[in-house]
Amino acid sequence: MLRCLSTSFILLLTLAELVSSDGLSPERLREARREPQNWLTYSGQYSGWRHTELKQIRTDNVRRLAAQWIFQFKGIAHKFEATPLVVDGIMYFPALDNRVFAIDARTGRQFWEYRRSLPEKMPVCCGTVSRGVAALGDRIFLATVDGHVVALDSKTGNLLWDAEAGDVKDGHSFTLAPLVVNDKVVVGVSGGEFGLRGYIDAYQADTGKRAWRFYTIPGPGEAGHETWEGDSWKHGGAPAWLTGTYDPDSNLIYWGTGNPAPDFYGDEREGDNLYSNSVVALEPDNGKLKWHFQFTPHDVNDYDATQIPVLLDLDWKGKPRKLLATANRNGFFYLLDRTNGEFLLAKQLLNTTWANGIDRNGRPIINTDNIPDEKGKVVCPGLYGATNWMSPSYSPVTRLFYVVLRQECFIHVSKPQHYEPGKSLWGGSNQEAPGMPRYGAVRALDPLTGESKWEFKLHSTSWGGTLSTAGGLLFVASEEGYLIALDALTGEELWHFRTGGGIYASPMSFAVDGRQYIVIPCQNALIAFAIT
Amino acid sequence: MLRCLSTSFILLLTLAELVSSDGLSPERLREARREPQNWLTYSGQYSGWRHTELKQIRTDNVRRLAAQWIFQFKGIAHKFEATPLVVDGIMYFPALDNRVFAIDARTGRQFWEYRRSLPEKMPVCCGTVSRGVAALGDRIFLATVDGHVVALDSKTGNLLWDAEAGDVKDGHSFTLAPLVVNDKVVVGVSGGEFGLRGYIDAYQADTGKRAWRFYTIPGPGEAGHETWEGDSWKHGGAPAWLTGTYDPDSNLIYWGTGNPAPDFYGDEREGDNLYSNSVVALEPDNGKLKWHFQFTPHDVNDYDATQIPVLLDLDWKGKPRKLLATANRNGFFYLLDRTNGEFLLAKQLLNTTWANGIDRNGRPIINTDNIPDEKGKVVCPGLYGATNWMSPSYSPVTRLFYVVLRQECFIHVSKPQHYEPGKSLWGGSNQEAPGMPRYGAVRALDPLTGESKWEFKLHSTSWGGTLSTAGGLLFVASEEGYLIALDALTGEELWHFRTGGGIYASPMSFAVDGRQYIVIPCQNALIAFAIT
Repeated sequence: MLRCLSTSFILLLTLAELVSSDGLSPERLREARREPQNWLTYSGQYSGWRHTELKQIRTDNVRRLAAQWIFQFKGIAHKFEATPLVVDGIMYFPALDNRVFAIDARTGRQFWEYRRSLPEKMPVCCGTVSRGVAALGDRIFLATVDGHVVALDSKTGNLLWDAEAGDVKDGHSFTLAPLVVNDKVVVGVSGGEFGLRGYIDAYQADTGKRAWRFYTIPGPGEAGHETWEGDSWKHGGAPAWLTGTYDPDSNLIYWGTGNPAPDFYGDEREGDNLYSNSVVALEPDNGKLKWHFQFTPHDVNDYDATQIPVLLDLDWKGKPRKLLATANRNGFFYLLDRTNGEFLLAKQLLNTTWANGIDRNGRPIINTDNIPDEKGKVVCPGLYGATNWMSPSYSPVTRLFYVVLRQECFIHVSKPQHYEPGKSLWGGSNQEAPGMPRYGAVRALDPLTGESKWEFKLHSTSWGGTLSTAGGLLFVASEEGYLIALDALTGEELWHFRTGGGIYASPMSFAVDGRQYIVIPCQNALIAFAIT
Repeated sequence: MLRCLSTSFILLLTLAELVSSDGLSPERLREARREPQNWLTYSGQYSGWRHTELKQIRTDNVRRLAAQWIFQFKGIAHKFEATPLVVDGIMYFPALDNRVFAIDARTGRQFWEYRRSLPEKMPVCCGTVSRGVAALGDRIFLATVDGHVVALDSKTGNLLWDAEAGDVKDGHSFTLAPLVVNDKVVVGVSGGEFGLRGYIDAYQADTGKRAWRFYTIPGPGEAGHETWEGDSWKHGGAPAWLTGTYDPDSNLIYWGTGNPAPDFYGDEREGDNLYSNSVVALEPDNGKLKWHFQFTPHDVNDYDATQIPVLLDLDWKGKPRKLLATANRNGFFYLLDRTNGEFLLAKQLLNTTWANGIDRNGRPIINTDNIPDEKGKVVCPGLYGATNWMSPSYSPVTRLFYVVLRQECFIHVSKPQHYEPGKSLWGGSNQEAPGMPRYGAVRALDPLTGESKWEFKLHSTSWGGTLSTAGGLLFVASEEGYLIALDALTGEELWHFRTGGGIYASPMSFAVDGRQYIVIPCQNALIAFAIT
């Protein structure tokens, strides 16, 4: 008797046969919610919800969720922070050292790999990570850790264009997933710790030509320039290292910005340091600033405001309102009017020793006894913030906003430091404060009040984000490498799986051949789960 | 509402609480078949069957087999060739660079890791792999790639003793899992390609003192010495780099030996080159040779005979007989009487161009037209052999012998070369022969005839071994990283899972808390499956 491997699982379709001929249009990106089988942008939709409309996996069957395939890549794993995209059955994601993979979303089998030749020495603060790619038409876009934006052929992985945004030797670097808006690829720079002047760039998807640059620090003659002392604006940081969101109706993109440099030493950059630690609303066609809101003026605690701005259309005080919700690294949850940046609400999330609250204008009431000095101060939230790059979610089913919180305190020490090209510009030092409470938690908030509906305590602080589902689930990840499914309404734990690897990414979901999958990147692997 | 992680999956039992107080006795090792929840030696049992008596996972439910946990280790994966042991719920295994892990077999959570400081430069031919550890009492034994044998405390991973077998600078190295027999730890050296004189060593498990050494090449005055020309015996190779088997009744260990050096150049080592490419039967108390059988005399094609010798008690020509079955790298299956080495049967497995058959005495009928010369000859099986380190299985349920075969042909070139310490001694070169048939297959043989009962063709040649089960299954692995469950009786494919990593190991099985698991090592991960 002669038996053979069933062709069903080694079928060697070429990628060209699988990729749909019409490609991914800007219209499809705008209406991503209508094709939940795909995951077309970093947060799944322009609104930043990180929510899937798929409901094959539900609270009543999630206990039967089982790994269907695993993809592993070789190399020394640093942090695998990417969210994969899925476009019509093909999955695209970057892994360590800006390698990009295209794999079969049904089986995990690899179609192609793009390897970038990176400089041996790069002044990058936090590893050569990449949080994702973007897609448009038959192209995949990657923002590289050596400060370039590149376009790849989605069928082959071949390089189509390569645009240099800035010199990596001076700290210009990208770690975020680009955001495609209309015909442009929008990216924000990393490297605030190297004293660059932050920016958000847009590149023409077809040619790679830069369409515009928005400097997050206004130059001479521009409004806001006066919020920087002397020449401090030239090296004031304010990077923009996480992917923003987009509202097609108002045609505005919303992007969070990072902290001013030097991080802990603010004495030579007196002023509010606009637009550091802000959300900026930009016109995607030209990068023009429509409005801004600054969460932490003149920050001296590394409170980047880069977290995903989540766009909600809800009734506020009895009237429909276009809202922007964000849980900030500085320890507060904020609700803004996204048409004009009007401050509506702030709510304290965790112990905050740097501020005693937020005033009626949305400005923090600084605790002047606790500003870092040369002896150091115990500051809560600590260096890593109340939350960070791990994505929040919003579920239209539960109408809850989900966020992963880190309760920890650090000692921040402030020391004078001046800019040197390619050298880190912390302006002091930090360490975890001994003896202070430290824990992680997933919290469900009412976005209209910031009140906690439930909290799921984690064994340790976590770097994994959230995914909410129309099946009534919230997927979260723990520091110990567990992927966990909670009841999105109650926070009850319904299922978990030990991945064996550190989780620094947020889960996503897609469907192929009528089957819903949940995917989690962990260490050197990507695991796809479905109901068995 | 406040929810917490269920304690069931983060329960921090100490390893000392889990390890049974009486430890693992030599009696338990001899009767391993009586405790199928454990996997106590490299092949699961002394007989080399790689068969589990567990039958919770069966032909009728294997489609519900799902990953339960994953363990990942960090580092650049070379080849993860180990079979883990499970002793009373604790799993022990080595990974790259001789790191040894103890993990909770229920959850994959790590208890301890042993890291060995290895020399930066080592003359090892095939990567710093380790195929497993051995256990006795409260100790774990590792044979290291730098030529030592070490004992670790099973509760802590602390080093208890460290015995040097030979200088790694001269090519002395270990890659096999040791075999504990009574109070001794038996190991065979790797490194035939570096022109050492092969040996099998036994170390006292309690002290690490070497109890005996059996040189696989007889010295002056010893029987067999005359099978080596001149001084060629001094650097004649014949390593012993895979774990042998043991018959407690006859109190003999059976160990396969590797090819003579130089591999392809035999002109200066005229003679049969005993005991290269043989199985040797040794008394475990003193290492005394009871008998030997040589499969490939005067080998010039790298046909190591290190494959696992499988011990069977079956009727032969109407009478019960103590048998030894082995599928050999040289392309033939052999059946011997294991009490005296008597040749009973040989059967050609694949295309063999080096020999036209095996004569009635078990000696190959050499194809003298196809002996490698300086121009090179196309030789089948090629360099990697008809089979290799991937383990075979024997199922007492089906009474079939399962082996993973590689059909491929190489060009072997023979060139004069003389020994230099620490330099490889191939005596020529090799490359895959273009245009020749190449495929992999799993074959089920009747061990009493060598006849094929069924064959399951693989897409490519595979390095993964087999595991047969009392549930009627045969687990195998493909080059593409699939773990596959076949019906052991028919070869029908019943289930598969894409691990995403290269598989260079053989599956094993264990049970804990009444649940049967199947484990496969792949690239940087170890995956445990059970019925969901």
